[in-house]
Amino acid sequence: MPGGLRTDLYQLNMAASYLRRGMDADATFSLSIRDLPVHRGFLVAAGLEACLDAVERFGFDEEDLAFLQGLGFEPRALDAFRGLRFGGEIWAVPEGRIVAAGEPLVEVTAPIAQAQLLETLLLNTITLHVTLASKAARYRIAARGTDLVDFSFRRTHGLDAGLAAARCSAIVGFSATSNVEAARRFGLRVSGTMAHSFVEAFESEADAFRAYAEDHAGNVTFLVDTYDTLSGVRTAIRTIEQLNISRGLAIRLDSGDLGQLAREARELLDDAGLESVRIFASGGLDEHEVSDLVLAEAPIDAFGIGTQLGVSADAPYVDSIYKLVTYDGRPTMKLSSGKASMPGAKQVFRGDGFADTIGLREEDLPGERLLERVVANGRRLRAPDALLAMQDRFGSDLDALPERARMLAGPEPISAVVSAQLELLTEQARAAATRRSVTI
Amino acid sequence: MPGGLRTDLYQLNMAASYLRRGMDADATFSLSIRDLPVHRGFLVAAGLEACLDAVERFGFDEEDLAFLQGLGFEPRALDAFRGLRFGGEIWAVPEGRIVAAGEPLVEVTAPIAQAQLLETLLLNTITLHVTLASKAARYRIAARGTDLVDFSFRRTHGLDAGLAAARCSAIVGFSATSNVEAARRFGLRVSGTMAHSFVEAFESEADAFRAYAEDHAGNVTFLVDTYDTLSGVRTAIRTIEQLNISRGLAIRLDSGDLGQLAREARELLDDAGLESVRIFASGGLDEHEVSDLVLAEAPIDAFGIGTQLGVSADAPYVDSIYKLVTYDGRPTMKLSSGKASMPGAKQVFRGDGFADTIGLREEDLPGERLLERVVANGRRLRAPDALLAMQDRFGSDLDALPERARMLAGPEPISAVVSAQLELLTEQARAAATRRSVTI
Repeated sequence: MPGGLRTDLYQLNMAASYLRRGMDADATFSLSIRDLPVHRGFLVAAGLEACLDAVERFGFDEEDLAFLQGLGFEPRALDAFRGLRFGGEIWAVPEGRIVAAGEPLVEVTAPIAQAQLLETLLLNTITLHVTLASKAARYRIAARGTDLVDFSFRRTHGLDAGLAAARCSAIVGFSATSNVEAARRFGLRVSGTMAHSFVEAFESEADAFRAYAEDHAGNVTFLVDTYDTLSGVRTAIRTIEQLNISRGLAIRLDSGDLGQLAREARELLDDAGLESVRIFASGGLDEHEVSDLVLAEAPIDAFGIGTQLGVSADAPYVDSIYKLVTYDGRPTMKLSSGKASMPGAKQVFRGDGFADTIGLREEDLPGERLLERVVANGRRLRAPDALLAMQDRFGSDLDALPERARMLAGPEPISAVVSAQLELLTEQARAAATRRSVTI
Repeated sequence: MPGGLRTDLYQLNMAASYLRRGMDADATFSLSIRDLPVHRGFLVAAGLEACLDAVERFGFDEEDLAFLQGLGFEPRALDAFRGLRFGGEIWAVPEGRIVAAGEPLVEVTAPIAQAQLLETLLLNTITLHVTLASKAARYRIAARGTDLVDFSFRRTHGLDAGLAAARCSAIVGFSATSNVEAARRFGLRVSGTMAHSFVEAFESEADAFRAYAEDHAGNVTFLVDTYDTLSGVRTAIRTIEQLNISRGLAIRLDSGDLGQLAREARELLDDAGLESVRIFASGGLDEHEVSDLVLAEAPIDAFGIGTQLGVSADAPYVDSIYKLVTYDGRPTMKLSSGKASMPGAKQVFRGDGFADTIGLREEDLPGERLLERVVANGRRLRAPDALLAMQDRFGSDLDALPERARMLAGPEPISAVVSAQLELLTEQARAAATRRSVTI
């Protein structure tokens, strides 16, 4: 499906006006996150590959056009939509980079109708991925090296969001996902064992454990809390002993006081000479709980992270915007109360220690340039980005991130200053915009 | 795509064990929402049609099986998956009904592997729709009859979640959506006008307004806050006067003090004899802000509702579970700390004033039965449910809902009691479960 109707009606209304009026000059739109959610010290750029896939496919098929005709779009608008493809240029921050509020993540330059029609698609996709990657990054910080596995699929906002959660958590260093389709699509390691229902379906917990261990030799995690956790641990130990198995063994705790139960389970396992059996913990954990368990040195080898990650429960969105910054060579901005934008195509120049300056793209300021040209003339300039590259970018940025911005509560966020030239252009555009609003 | 891999790995692991062991007795799984989020007085049943569509399509194609082979699934498991279709029975609460925490929303009975494999799909779909419909219902209560339009698509968790937000808000009485694809798919009214970028793309606000009014005659909403809101209102008035248009006119306020600006705008419009021009307000509104504006009698004719609805920002998930309640005729339950379940296939019996009793399905208690049999032998028992029927159910239930449960803050939630027979069965199953956990 070309996907042209996966948008808000007003994009089509505006595009129809532009096409009808021959307004085909280039526009640049800049996508950024206006403010950080509370308790976020940074954001993680993510979602670009999904955007570029959708941009390449973007268009209208005859069914789409027939529906728009029914809505009252006139024939010449439909004709203009029929052949419409994206033929412009896109600059973007590569996925996995750590960024500050206000920094452009994606900038689109194209004839204004084309660039306008991508708004909903780009905002939706970037918002979701930045939200989830930025949340997942907090678990990475909290876990301090302990393995993390994405278990969120059952409660993400739809199946697509489940794929995004698996991918975003992989970008920031999760080691596996429970989501099989995500594993296939993105080449992730997939992880999973049994549910409580499996234990209940057998005559006894022991029967269930034995059956599972026989059927899935070499990769067996016993879920021990269906009835009584420590009793379940003992049953797991007996099962291991009776079947005389040793490879790929773990137990999973999914309820109760995970720290205390992990200690008691570890002792039971060690007493039985099963030091190599890992302890896996899950159960609605947020990043603060993970941090507390790790700091308390609970003997947990891996965490399964579900709903709190999958919906970014404490901050389920970021305040993303897609703003017109130039049209036909003229800088543009809005002055709306509390929501004013800054004009001009931009670049972020990064000095050591996240000393970021947002300047104009044409400026030549010192520092690393975060935005790269990824599409020209409607075509990608390189092969799809590899997950490994995103993981490396995130890992490097996280290592360099100031401690104060990493804090899980009350962080001091990284932030960018605005270049003198951009300040000047903003003042000029503000004055011009004020003139544009004079009542006729 | 059959969608068999859109699941968590453990579902496939368990199903493989069941199939290998010839465990093909019927299981019943019960899907419910364990607890209400804070400040929720009720839930709205939703998502069933999407579930039934997916259940009908459920299966594995050869590509799916090849991927599973690569994960190490053995040939006999793959053979069993190859022909697998859902052939069981589903009972469910129809969409649009208002329900309490703990009440089963969907119950699936089938050979255990089939019923287990649907878990992730059903939980994901019902969780999303119940979350969004329950949030949207709060706006319906807050608006007290004022029109509501779904503007959430740009910030929902993916494109599918955008469709769900449009559909769920329609179920509870929103009058339109900005989401064109949702309008096509679900037969909704679609609504939209211009963005700030449109105003900025023209030499002046007046030029932009005139162009839009010429291009979209009969349905024109002027977005007046790009530069200065009241100046924008005056420009809209002049445009209307100059073009001498009168049908389908509105202005939209998207920032600032909406109540105050609406009053001032109304006065300007009325002074110009434009009493029929409607005032539309938007801008990150939550249900409390809508309620305050309505109670203050701000002259707002319609609200556009975006992100706060689209991600259910204050409560982005519900605590949904899918629990095995019988296997092979035997009641089952788990005892996990704080998460114990209740055994047996169930029914909800509703007396006047939401006097709900959760009983066993086979019981004959007084009251309306909320769960209906919707699938037998793997086939739907009737045509897809109409949106109008869902809207009627919601409207009737909302009218009957006790005032204390409707409150937007600090509600006293509706709740269900448990029948004596279900209590008894739970006690018996608890005792049996305790025996099942005895360490070997």
